[in-house]
Amino acid sequence: MDNEMTDKTAAINLGEADTSQTSKNAQKKAEKQERLAAQKANKSATNTTKEAGRSEAKKAVSKPSKKAEGVELVGITVAREDDFSGWYQQVLTKGDFLDYYDISGCYVLKPGSYFIWEEVQAYFNQKIKRMKVKNCSFPLFVSQEALEREKAHIEGFAAEVAWVTHAGDKPLEKKIALRPTSETVMYPYYAKWIRSHRDLPLRLNQWNSVVRWEFKHPQPFLRTREFLWQEGHTAHFDQDAAKAEVRQILEYYAGAYEELLAVPVIRGRKTEKEKFAGADYTETVEGFIAATGRGIQGGTSHHLGQNFSKMFGITVEDPTAKEGERKPPVYVFQNSWGLSTRTIGVMVMTHGDNRGLVVPPRVSEYQVVIVPVGITAKSTDEEKAALNDQVDALATVLEADETRVICDKREGYSPGWKFNDWEQKGVPLRLEFGPKDSAAHQVTTARRDILGNKGTIQISNLATGVKELLETIQKDLYNRANQDFKSHVKKITNWDDFVPALNSKNVCLIPSCLTEQCEDEIKDLSARKEEDDDTPQDERAPSMGAKSLCIPFDQPEGVVKGETACCNPQCKNKAQAWCLFGRSY
Amino acid sequence: MDNEMTDKTAAINLGEADTSQTSKNAQKKAEKQERLAAQKANKSATNTTKEAGRSEAKKAVSKPSKKAEGVELVGITVAREDDFSGWYQQVLTKGDFLDYYDISGCYVLKPGSYFIWEEVQAYFNQKIKRMKVKNCSFPLFVSQEALEREKAHIEGFAAEVAWVTHAGDKPLEKKIALRPTSETVMYPYYAKWIRSHRDLPLRLNQWNSVVRWEFKHPQPFLRTREFLWQEGHTAHFDQDAAKAEVRQILEYYAGAYEELLAVPVIRGRKTEKEKFAGADYTETVEGFIAATGRGIQGGTSHHLGQNFSKMFGITVEDPTAKEGERKPPVYVFQNSWGLSTRTIGVMVMTHGDNRGLVVPPRVSEYQVVIVPVGITAKSTDEEKAALNDQVDALATVLEADETRVICDKREGYSPGWKFNDWEQKGVPLRLEFGPKDSAAHQVTTARRDILGNKGTIQISNLATGVKELLETIQKDLYNRANQDFKSHVKKITNWDDFVPALNSKNVCLIPSCLTEQCEDEIKDLSARKEEDDDTPQDERAPSMGAKSLCIPFDQPEGVVKGETACCNPQCKNKAQAWCLFGRSY
Repeated sequence: MDNEMTDKTAAINLGEADTSQTSKNAQKKAEKQERLAAQKANKSATNTTKEAGRSEAKKAVSKPSKKAEGVELVGITVAREDDFSGWYQQVLTKGDFLDYYDISGCYVLKPGSYFIWEEVQAYFNQKIKRMKVKNCSFPLFVSQEALEREKAHIEGFAAEVAWVTHAGDKPLEKKIALRPTSETVMYPYYAKWIRSHRDLPLRLNQWNSVVRWEFKHPQPFLRTREFLWQEGHTAHFDQDAAKAEVRQILEYYAGAYEELLAVPVIRGRKTEKEKFAGADYTETVEGFIAATGRGIQGGTSHHLGQNFSKMFGITVEDPTAKEGERKPPVYVFQNSWGLSTRTIGVMVMTHGDNRGLVVPPRVSEYQVVIVPVGITAKSTDEEKAALNDQVDALATVLEADETRVICDKREGYSPGWKFNDWEQKGVPLRLEFGPKDSAAHQVTTARRDILGNKGTIQISNLATGVKELLETIQKDLYNRANQDFKSHVKKITNWDDFVPALNSKNVCLIPSCLTEQCEDEIKDLSARKEEDDDTPQDERAPSMGAKSLCIPFDQPEGVVKGETACCNPQCKNKAQAWCLFGRSY
Repeated sequence: MDNEMTDKTAAINLGEADTSQTSKNAQKKAEKQERLAAQKANKSATNTTKEAGRSEAKKAVSKPSKKAEGVELVGITVAREDDFSGWYQQVLTKGDFLDYYDISGCYVLKPGSYFIWEEVQAYFNQKIKRMKVKNCSFPLFVSQEALEREKAHIEGFAAEVAWVTHAGDKPLEKKIALRPTSETVMYPYYAKWIRSHRDLPLRLNQWNSVVRWEFKHPQPFLRTREFLWQEGHTAHFDQDAAKAEVRQILEYYAGAYEELLAVPVIRGRKTEKEKFAGADYTETVEGFIAATGRGIQGGTSHHLGQNFSKMFGITVEDPTAKEGERKPPVYVFQNSWGLSTRTIGVMVMTHGDNRGLVVPPRVSEYQVVIVPVGITAKSTDEEKAALNDQVDALATVLEADETRVICDKREGYSPGWKFNDWEQKGVPLRLEFGPKDSAAHQVTTARRDILGNKGTIQISNLATGVKELLETIQKDLYNRANQDFKSHVKKITNWDDFVPALNSKNVCLIPSCLTEQCEDEIKDLSARKEEDDDTPQDERAPSMGAKSLCIPFDQPEGVVKGETACCNPQCKNKAQAWCLFGRSY
């Protein structure tokens, strides 16, 4: 199955804050950063000399040395707007979402980020189980014979397939592949299991990890050699029902982004050039990273038509055949659809700021942190204990209302230090509680998404007040991101405005003839015409140009099919639709 | 981590119904069966010639040809008591739990069995999350350097490690292993992340798959080259708290077996010989397959003491050190614990019968199947439609009460055919509903666990009546299995009774000195003394002998520590405790 990770054309590295400044140098810089981060993680995590190892490890971790009263928190040291890639690495590692690994392109997903994946799983599982999709588990391994059975399909993956050749010190009789995706693993069984139209629809899903040994610049969550995802594979007798499912799943993907992750997406169809090879068509949700002005594919749902069923011989007897009548078997219609942990990366890039992560309440491991304040050198042990007891009581009230809460009663840290620490981790709401709050029967609130925005909630209204505020934060995060996205979608009909718009971190809706040749030309033209770049032209990656993101379902007025001119000045075709183009991940 | 799959001594194949009959021949037979089943699956699932492939696939699947009215269902063709291994293969494949794969030791987990795994996951996740254990995800890959860092630990796995050496057609600079377990993947990060006693306890868990390329006879769920499991790894400052966790987790494992899978287990501690190498001690839940008279390790929970923390340098500063005082760092205490999809295999072996699977209601994908009956050739279309509507209405009532129900309204199949079909799949309760039932305002019930046991439930009491009956089935399944297990635990003090008891499919509680040498002797003695076996002795696997399963926590009276003689006639030591011995998987 195609997936955001398989995009062969998006060779652009993510190392630069400003797309118009993208250069070989920036790419090299980003690659060096990745290499250094991995080496650091590796060094500290594999050093065997105990004492030396310990001190090395201490240096590599992001948390400050403890025990020292009032020690300064080492915050994010690069600004999002100055070095987006460096910023991204820091918010992930310092925010406790991820650690680097000693194998490039592999990462440790810490509880904070894995929790988000579990929330996405729960959300999506509930939706698909209601549709009668069933979860199952196929092997990680694929024999060479099975993998290479469908030549055209595997061609796209061949260079990235990881091969197991030995067990212990013994060579295997035949080398065995790790699945890059499960078509060739699963579809032979579909051919075996499906016998009658009454066996249809067959709808299976797997939550697993797949391996694509990419040699491009890896990026946590966005481009990794092993990644977690779900892959749904369904077979239908009725093509209309199959197509309806493609759209239904796309809506669930959009729901996961919008409702859980507070990330706006644009729903649409991929062009012929960008669709999954092997699909009749691909539907997609496309996101937008405002900081870099780039589009990012969020999740794809493919209608495979009968392409794979013909390759794998997945047929049913024709139900219209009368008793004794021989009719040729009927090929089934198939879909496949996938959503990966890329979701988490998009969320981080969308909401994070220069203080660290910002996690939407619905997916945050902790929605609320309560920090006791107002304890001074003069406070007695009894006063401290009483305050801590009250803090625990507040947490109990919130937990009873199913709010996920943590109390930070750690000693030896100032409240300010704790504030910064939890801001870095992205906890959406902080409650401060001290003797003054206690006397006023209130808690003080501080939103993560609007720094400096403080308020109060009466304790008598604690659970409800907190729930409402969390909902407000969730909505505001979405609305701000949505406004950011929508204000950076430029409707363009004059080609001269196209590249400048890209350079100003926009994506562009243009009238397009939707042909592959025209797309190739647009890519070339938008790459070549880039301004303010002193890198020799031949050193620039060809993918610097814009590519089509999707043909949005929601089409504005202004394109008359077959009449309006295609926006590409070299193209003589008439436009078919508004198509969204952009630089992209 | 050690796990049921790593048992180096249990080389016995599972192919025989009667342990006393175990022979090289039986093993060969079982191996041939496995090979044939895999070939069959492979052939049908990879055949590219469409027509030929289709017909081949038809032959390989267990379901009968459809469309033919009243066609005979091809049931389980070998009896559990005649050929246990062949029976096990058939109930799994014909019951839609599993399919064979073209790579030996790998299997397809179909929705029916994967559903059970999801139930186990939900049960265990709820328990451990309440303990503040957090889920996370570490990579599948391990560098050779990291893997081999802890020599003693890796020694046990070395021969089974699968190595990736190529990506596409390019050789990797360094070969990379697939994790056989995650100690060497995770503990370097524990050393990096844990800095103060305030970072403790650190409790992480992963749901993933691990790879152990065993060359022994594979067995679905019990011995597989890739398997799904959870692996928990925790670090503690307080050893008592660590030990309490080991026991708590063991109780959850026991709960998963007893409460969900209706499988009784005996809780105990492993002997020094059988504990996980690297652990201070291992606690275990041990199951019993009555049909073969063999013990089976169900799940293990290890207290690692400081063994790994010393190897990996996982320390905290000594919190008792005063300001400015230098004290050596303190090594943390660690636990690890794992439960795998082996649970499903044990459940199938425990409850299945010669009609197929028997699945306990709490973990069954469908708890109830409703089959319309009483439709004859004379019935009108209106009568059929009316009956189907009533069946749907019954299902709606049950679903509203959160009972998992399926209605079998397939045309072209007789009720009897459907009964057999759902019996093979193990659905715990069948409801039959026809015009007579309708007139009497009732449904007819048929329990899967007691064939031929029919009853009725008044429709006015449907939801409650079904819920109660399902609970009764769940309890009865457990009670029968428990009685089976308990009646086959023989308390033996006279060595002469030991081997005959094993040969009569029992496991034996004997007074034991618990030394490794004594265990080795018992194994030898019980292997050699086997009767009724015409296979030349030197061809028999050494593991034919009995080994210790556990030292049960629940110790009967009769052993006075240091006074009672050890049961092994060659042993001069005094007994330390009653120890459970048996032939085992």
